[in-house]
Amino acid sequence: MKRLDTRDPQFGPQFDALLDTARDTTARVDGPVAEIIARVRAEGDAALLDLTARFDRWTPAGIGALRVGAAEVAEAKARCRPELLAALDVAAERIERFHAAQMPQDMVLPEDGLMLGMRWNAVDAAGLYVPGGKAAYPSSVLMNALPARVAGVGRVVMTVPTPDGEIPPLVLAAADRAGVTEVWRIGGAQAIAALAWGTASIRPVDKIVGPGNAYVAEAKRQVFGRVGIDSIAGPSEVVVLADAAQDPRRVAIDLLAQAEHDEAAQAILITDSGAMAEAAAAAVEEALRSLPREAIARASWEAHGAILLVRDWEEGVALCDRLAPEHLELLVEKPEALFARIRHAGAAFIGGWCPEALGDYVAGPNHVLPTGRTARFASGLSVYDFLKRTTWVSATEAGLHRIGPAAVTLAEAEGLGAHARSIAMRLRQ
Amino acid sequence: MKRLDTRDPQFGPQFDALLDTARDTTARVDGPVAEIIARVRAEGDAALLDLTARFDRWTPAGIGALRVGAAEVAEAKARCRPELLAALDVAAERIERFHAAQMPQDMVLPEDGLMLGMRWNAVDAAGLYVPGGKAAYPSSVLMNALPARVAGVGRVVMTVPTPDGEIPPLVLAAADRAGVTEVWRIGGAQAIAALAWGTASIRPVDKIVGPGNAYVAEAKRQVFGRVGIDSIAGPSEVVVLADAAQDPRRVAIDLLAQAEHDEAAQAILITDSGAMAEAAAAAVEEALRSLPREAIARASWEAHGAILLVRDWEEGVALCDRLAPEHLELLVEKPEALFARIRHAGAAFIGGWCPEALGDYVAGPNHVLPTGRTARFASGLSVYDFLKRTTWVSATEAGLHRIGPAAVTLAEAEGLGAHARSIAMRLRQ
Repeated sequence: MKRLDTRDPQFGPQFDALLDTARDTTARVDGPVAEIIARVRAEGDAALLDLTARFDRWTPAGIGALRVGAAEVAEAKARCRPELLAALDVAAERIERFHAAQMPQDMVLPEDGLMLGMRWNAVDAAGLYVPGGKAAYPSSVLMNALPARVAGVGRVVMTVPTPDGEIPPLVLAAADRAGVTEVWRIGGAQAIAALAWGTASIRPVDKIVGPGNAYVAEAKRQVFGRVGIDSIAGPSEVVVLADAAQDPRRVAIDLLAQAEHDEAAQAILITDSGAMAEAAAAAVEEALRSLPREAIARASWEAHGAILLVRDWEEGVALCDRLAPEHLELLVEKPEALFARIRHAGAAFIGGWCPEALGDYVAGPNHVLPTGRTARFASGLSVYDFLKRTTWVSATEAGLHRIGPAAVTLAEAEGLGAHARSIAMRLRQ
Repeated sequence: MKRLDTRDPQFGPQFDALLDTARDTTARVDGPVAEIIARVRAEGDAALLDLTARFDRWTPAGIGALRVGAAEVAEAKARCRPELLAALDVAAERIERFHAAQMPQDMVLPEDGLMLGMRWNAVDAAGLYVPGGKAAYPSSVLMNALPARVAGVGRVVMTVPTPDGEIPPLVLAAADRAGVTEVWRIGGAQAIAALAWGTASIRPVDKIVGPGNAYVAEAKRQVFGRVGIDSIAGPSEVVVLADAAQDPRRVAIDLLAQAEHDEAAQAILITDSGAMAEAAAAAVEEALRSLPREAIARASWEAHGAILLVRDWEEGVALCDRLAPEHLELLVEKPEALFARIRHAGAAFIGGWCPEALGDYVAGPNHVLPTGRTARFASGLSVYDFLKRTTWVSATEAGLHRIGPAAVTLAEAEGLGAHARSIAMRLRQ
């Protein structure tokens, strides 16, 4: 963990170093991934069967065995504890409501002799990649699938690797609750290839979302253009802004809730109080000792954690905007006022009763958020990821006469004769 | 030009072949581009000076000579014909009005003990790449820069290569009208590198848009993640739907207005009338002979043009959705009704008085649109490209008690102990 102080003459370069430290240690796998995609395109279902046997350590009896059926979903739900299903339902309902409120309206701009407009439409089909084994989080299934369904996507196809044939029951329950329409036991680059290009058994989709390992991320990069993809997520991060009045134990556990994700996660405290900086550092050490995921959280905190002591919140806001954090917690006296001054963050959690973990599960906004300073230009997953716009224009003869001549002038200036003539021919008639 | 008929038993495979024909002949330049980016990162301004001398055939006196000053802009405007500046102004005003209407509203969802919301913010700085020489279209400067300014981007940086030191005056006039705040005479991958990473003289931006050659496209791919980019545009295309009642000469000139862009452009006519198919084919031949860009348009029409004869508009709509064209013209008796049935298109031009060229210049919607069937999932350039969302949550103690327990249940099920504890600790207090 690094402790920096803006009063320190070395603060500038130290903060730059913090910003520039790469936390993403993704291996280069473009060659192997290109081979897998080429195989799935050439051999289709046969490649999926072969690659699944090789990577997931079980041998499907045939392509039918890769599809998860309704009976299997029902059985999985029956195996989940009722209070888990109830909690899943609380989450799903709140996520649905928030994303429904996000839905944009079509636009129509009538004017003299012209109508302009913009129409929103959902993609026809979306693919959702879910990592296998312990990394298969039911909450991520809800967060990725529900925005697609709320946006109006008719076909939502989930792929999930099932190492040794296993799939966590709560993941299937989440898929069912979220309205996923097809589930396939396929993982890795081969799943992305099947979603993008299709096979005899799996129809292709138009957009692929969801987290995955280095192979999955590279496969998404390689199929981009053929289909749309969400952004490639890096390690997770939080910035907590806390003043002297906060409980250091809450500050500490909120930092560690980020650090426990993985060793490359980053938790940063920005405070205007030297006493809070001290107390929070001590409280993190104290809390670490009793955490189930102590080793991971400790590795993250030691390698990437930071406490930044600022003179005032003007400095704090400026540093926060340079970090452009995925998650932002505002544990200060007037959190709304401070939030209004911050421009760049994926998601904000305002005030002492709103720990970030609330947003990971049940608050309603999406937990798939821009990482690695990309909140400067990117946004969290939303219905917009599953919608696209068609703009449109219609004109009467009078409308064309009103604006057509300017278009002819510009087309001629750009040397595009057929452009000019397509308008001029109509103006003459 | 291919003529296909849905009554033909071979239509299916023929149409698939039409869909699958790659028109993008972009060379692989990832190695050279990676070298250029590395040089600009390592050497900054010195690399820009050296690469400009090498690729653009003029030697800047120093980094200051790469910046276009206010006096040069004023002089360029003075050299433009007044009617050109007036036409540019008609276009700019209409584009501004349409994009202003696109601006989304912030969202606030109050509920018992909780507030949820979503806030829109512009990126701090945007970069606009403009190709050099004859490919520098003033209309593209307006279409790329105005949405950024309307979205509220404070700093809009344009880079344009100036082969032999030349820059078309109308391009500078368009930049001035569109509110571009900095213009640099730099092109190629080195311009993209400078925009993404910054140099001593050029501050980096957060988002880069604009068309370019293979080097520019590859450089945008390589800096993606460091900054946001727009989609990489392929060759342009139009689908014209026309019934028997249309004037074949209008149909023909609208097809050719697309074909004249470049040899890889694609113009497709879908008609339910055999007579129109005949007449349009003849009218294209007739019109081609007198086009200033005859050679380009003819090459495009012969290699990629197509006339599809359909039994009825149900077939026509289905084929159009599979093509998901960048531009769609509806030259039919009831164009609005047909448009309502089509799901995938970048921009639509409705009825006989609305040729697509109107939208290239003055209608108001953006002319930067998804190509190569990507309208299935992608949209045209808009204010959304320069905005990002921050979602937010605030809670009272009562609100946390209402939804916190479900989050604790799910966090424990996912094995994330610090997540659960960050909420449980507050629930106990």
